[in-house]
Order: sequence, then C-alpha cells, then structure tokens
Amino acid sequence: MTDNTRLTTESFQAVNWVDEQVRLLDQRLLPDKETYLTYSDPYLLADAISNMVVRGAPAIGITAAYGVVLAARKAFNQDPHHWQAEIQSVLDYLANARPTAVNLFWAIRRMQSRFAGIDIDTDPCPGLLEEAMSIHQEDVSANIKMGELGADEINQTNEILTHCNAGALATGGYGTALGVVRSLYNRGNLKSVFATETRPWFQGARLTAWELLKDSIPVTLITDHAASHLFSQGRIQWVVIGADRIAANGDVVNKIGTYALAISARYHGIRFMVVAPTSTIDLNMDEGKKVPIEDRQANEVLNYRGLQIGPENASVWNPAFDITPADLVDIMVTERGVIHRPNQAKIRTLFN
Amino acid sequence: MTDNTRLTTESFQAVNWVDEQVRLLDQRLLPDKETYLTYSDPYLLADAISNMVVRGAPAIGITAAYGVVLAARKAFNQDPHHWQAEIQSVLDYLANARPTAVNLFWAIRRMQSRFAGIDIDTDPCPGLLEEAMSIHQEDVSANIKMGELGADEINQTNEILTHCNAGALATGGYGTALGVVRSLYNRGNLKSVFATETRPWFQGARLTAWELLKDSIPVTLITDHAASHLFSQGRIQWVVIGADRIAANGDVVNKIGTYALAISARYHGIRFMVVAPTSTIDLNMDEGKKVPIEDRQANEVLNYRGLQIGPENASVWNPAFDITPADLVDIMVTERGVIHRPNQAKIRTLFN
Repeated sequence: MTDNTRLTTESFQAVNWVDEQVRLLDQRLLPDKETYLTYSDPYLLADAISNMVVRGAPAIGITAAYGVVLAARKAFNQDPHHWQAEIQSVLDYLANARPTAVNLFWAIRRMQSRFAGIDIDTDPCPGLLEEAMSIHQEDVSANIKMGELGADEINQTNEILTHCNAGALATGGYGTALGVVRSLYNRGNLKSVFATETRPWFQGARLTAWELLKDSIPVTLITDHAASHLFSQGRIQWVVIGADRIAANGDVVNKIGTYALAISARYHGIRFMVVAPTSTIDLNMDEGKKVPIEDRQANEVLNYRGLQIGPENASVWNPAFDITPADLVDIMVTERGVIHRPNQAKIRTLFN
Repeated sequence: MTDNTRLTTESFQAVNWVDEQVRLLDQRLLPDKETYLTYSDPYLLADAISNMVVRGAPAIGITAAYGVVLAARKAFNQDPHHWQAEIQSVLDYLANARPTAVNLFWAIRRMQSRFAGIDIDTDPCPGLLEEAMSIHQEDVSANIKMGELGADEINQTNEILTHCNAGALATGGYGTALGVVRSLYNRGNLKSVFATETRPWFQGARLTAWELLKDSIPVTLITDHAASHLFSQGRIQWVVIGADRIAANGDVVNKIGTYALAISARYHGIRFMVVAPTSTIDLNMDEGKKVPIEDRQANEVLNYRGLQIGPENASVWNPAFDITPADLVDIMVTERGVIHRPNQAKIRTLFN
C-alpha cells in the first residue's frame, strides 16, 4: 500500500487509509487532543463527516472516496453478485452527510465511474481503493502545485490573513490556502500569518493556529470581526482562503465570514485570493446563490464544549457558509492554472 | 434617596446606588447567573470596571461618578481638612480603569467640577451623590429621548441588526441602540432584532439576547461574521449601534466589529445608525484614529470560562474597539438631536 505520509510534510494526517480502515484525525478535539478514530463501516464514516470529525471540502471528498471502498466491501461481502445494487443506499447516505462542499459528490461520482470497469463477481475493493488513493494523492499534488502557483502570484509579502482552515487538516495534505502560505514561507517570502478564529466552530483558533505552529510558521489569532481593524492599519496586502464550492461563474461558497472579508478587503484595496482544486468547481451550478447553504444547529453558537454562552431559549441562525460574488475575487488559484478576476469564460478554460 | 428603578422599564439595573454602596450586576456571569456585587471601596470599584463586571460607555461613566462619591467618603473620613487633595490618587486610579470609553473621564471631570462649590470641612458626600444621581438620571432620560428620536428616523422596519450590547446593561437604563429598538418595538413598528454574538466577550450572546428576551422582544443570534450573509438576503434595512467615543469629526470608536459592519452595510445599501449621548462625544479628539484603542489579554480569545479554545502558545491580537470613519455613518442620534452624515461642523452644532 502506498504510504501517503510521504506526500506531505506534516506530522499528522486528517484522513488516511490504514489497516484496511479509514483513519480520521478527530478535529473536534484539536488542539487539546490529537486523537485518531478508525472506521470500517461506511454509515459511521458518513456520520463522522456530518459531525465534523473531518471537515474541509477536499478532505471530505477524500474521506467519501475511502467511504465508497468501505461501502463496496460491505456490499460485496453481503452479496458478491449484486454489490453494485446493494451499494446504492450507502452512497446516498454518504452523499447526504453534508450539503455544501461539492467535493463530496464529486468524489462519489468519480468512484462510481470506476464501477463500470469492474466485473460482477469480482471483488471491487482493490480497484476502488486504488481509485480512492489516486484521489488522495492527486489532491496533495494539486495542493503543492497550487502552493507554488499562489506563491508566484504573491511573490513577497509580510503578512497574510487567512480564514477558517484551508490547510493540511482540510485536505489530503499541505493545504490549499495554507499550501500557498507554506510555499511562500518556505521561500523566505512571508513573515507571518493572521488567522481569524472562525466562529462558531473555531477552525482558525483550533486548527489553523495548531497546524501552523506545528510547522513553526508564526501565526497571530484574531477574532473574525477584528480583520477590518487590522486591514485599516495597512499591514496586510493579501487575504488567502480556500473554497467549499465554486460556481461556474466564479462565485465562491466558503466558510461563513469569507464574504465579509472579501467586501472589507476590496474596501481597503487588499487583494483577495481563493485557492481551490478544480474538484471544488461545480460547472452545474451557474451561480453561487443556487448552492445549498448548510444551516447548522443553534448549539454550535450557544455552547462551547458544554458551557452555555447565550440564553438557552435564544433563537439562532447558524449558516455554515456564505457566497462571495466572483467580482470580489482578485485571483483564483487552481492546480490547472491561475485566473485573475474569475468569470464564466475564464473558469471554462480550466476544463478545456 | 431617589429610586432610579422607576426610570427604567427593566427588571434589572447594571449600576445603582443602594444602601450607601455601588451595586453592580455582574455582567461576567450573565446569562447564567444574575448576581449583584456591592462596592464601598473606590479602588475595588475601579477594578470592577477594568474586569468588566460593568461595561458599556455610559454605564462606566455612571459607575465612575458613584465611584467618586466612594472616593470622597474615604478621603473625608481619613482627613476632613484635606479630602480634595487626598482624593486625587483615587480619581487617577479610577480614570485608568479603561482607556477607550470617554464617558469615564467625562463623568470624573463633571464630578470634580462639583468639588469647587463644596466648602472645606464640609462632608462632600451628599452633594457629590446628588451629582452622581443626576448623571445617572440624565443618562436614562437621554436614552429615552434618543429612543424616540431614533424610532422617528426609522419609522417602521421589520428587522434591525445590532452589535455588542448598547442596552440597559450598558447604560443607566433603557439603552442607546437598544433604546431605539425598545421605542420602535413599543410602537409596533419593529418585528425582531438580529444580535451579533460579539466576540470575544460575547456581549451580544450573553447580554443583548438576555436583555431583549427579558423584555419579550424577539431576538435571533448570529455569529459576527454572518452579518454580511444576512445583509445579502435583503432582509435588513438598518444597523443600529452605540458608541464608546465619538471624535469631533464624527468618527465612531465602538466595539471591535462595528467598522466591519459599517463597511458591509454601505456595500449593501443598508443604513447605519449610531446612538450615543453627547457625553460620548470627545471634542478634544479631532479624529477617531487618535483615540486610544484598548488591547485586551489573549486569554479572552483563547479561553471560554477556563476551557481552552486555541493553542496555549498562540499569539493573539485582541483590540477591544475599532474606528468607523464618519463617512460610513448615515445617522447619529444624540439626546440633543439627530445628525445625518456627521462631520465636524454638524457635531459642533450639538454643543451650541
């Protein structure tokens, strides 16, 4: 079996295939505890995606790909003659784990397209595992490529602001936005990173800060709403973020708060870079407004690890993502190339 | 003694003079516990301001005014012949409790101006208490006046977004921004309020939601960064906030995040209203950039009630306030009248 760890520089992996199981770093417990959970059942793995044991669009896609292997093994063991029919309900369950990140559906579709080439009565697992590992390795390669491309665009800067976690923890390794950070820092062309804490789940405080400190990249945490005050001080030239889904016109659906940062970056003349593999681009969605935005439970806002924050009976609106219109994006970095001021025509060229 | 409670409709008071002591509602414990703390020592009262037992610019001013009474009593008891000299170090300590809200210094100066009329060897406490109570009552009256003026400007709207807590808890009673909310709601011209949770101290989640629920005004909590996503949906016509200090040119220093909301409100064509008594206007500060912005400790961002959020060794930048330039303010409501698009000349007319 390929050792995926050689593909990344990190001492941890968000998702991996280990001992015939899917192994996830439990991101709910970071940075307090570095705990790995293993899954051999595809339904439990889907629940792990819903519950955010693993999160980040590319990492969700990779997890789902490995989940299809688990699903095929389960279906084949139950009925070797009809595993392709048996598997469908599991795939539906997997696809419903979360609604916004398109990589989930993309990975499942890609795994399904592999089914066609597998003979009935043949154990599908080796072929599917090979495909899942390809998805995983291609993601890491894409990230390294995007890291270099993004670093070329920025060239040199003192400080970058990033939002949420678009790092190794959100991908197969290396990261998208944090891939650019890593590449730039490794070149000696970046001094430090500002990370927004990213309410309500604190991906910035819990994951990005942890991940960058592990790589000894200087990071300063701020509350989400402090970004504009930071921008007003003229210290930041670049905001660099990932994406959960990019519409065909270049609208970017990403972690709640991205849109506010994009508006404020434009107001301050700060450049706004989105870094995402083409697996994040959904050509079937002509604009961002049509992408389903996940509403998560009130509890994420009203509680922190069981400690009450707001009144128990308060109403909460907790959208997990927002939509940044393409015209607020200065640069979009994919593994197939860089687009300035994305629009439908430019996006389409990536797929030619 | 005047019963200040008659001046407000609320069942609670952030600050009051009770049994010859200053009584504060401990806002650190809300909404879990409604606990009142009493202070007879001015130094401990100053610490209570620093530690945010009480917060909100007008409430800080009122607390400081009562604190001067405590200081005078202590000084007079120590040396009836030289109490005005004795008191100075206590007043300095009080004035250093927090740097940004100007009402603190305003209240201390107003109390000091009362000293001149008090004979040496005369107990200064009755006169000073009268002055402090006037400050308190004038604040409540100003809030009720501003509530009506602000409600006149808005006339009718479905939903208002407010930030932090500019309510009864932040003032002598009724509130500034929430005073406008109360007046509008009482007229039947407002359906509900969106409250940003306001990191890192959660004034929106812990205080505004609690306070509005107490008055049965419907409130929905959102994370700070979700406001722009809400704005994009066209549901909100007004953002209404308070202020910690207003510069002579109309720049508004207020809770971190206000500036981001103002930028986004302008981007979406949503009107931005600032509600603050003239005691919040600092004519000695010609622009907002010159106002000292309090940097608070990392711990507020990295912990919630002892539970770790981010890595312990992470760097944090935690500015408590930001500066909204006057040109992003559509309407400024004071107890002396309303200003549209504030500037230096218009601000000056309030003091003629």
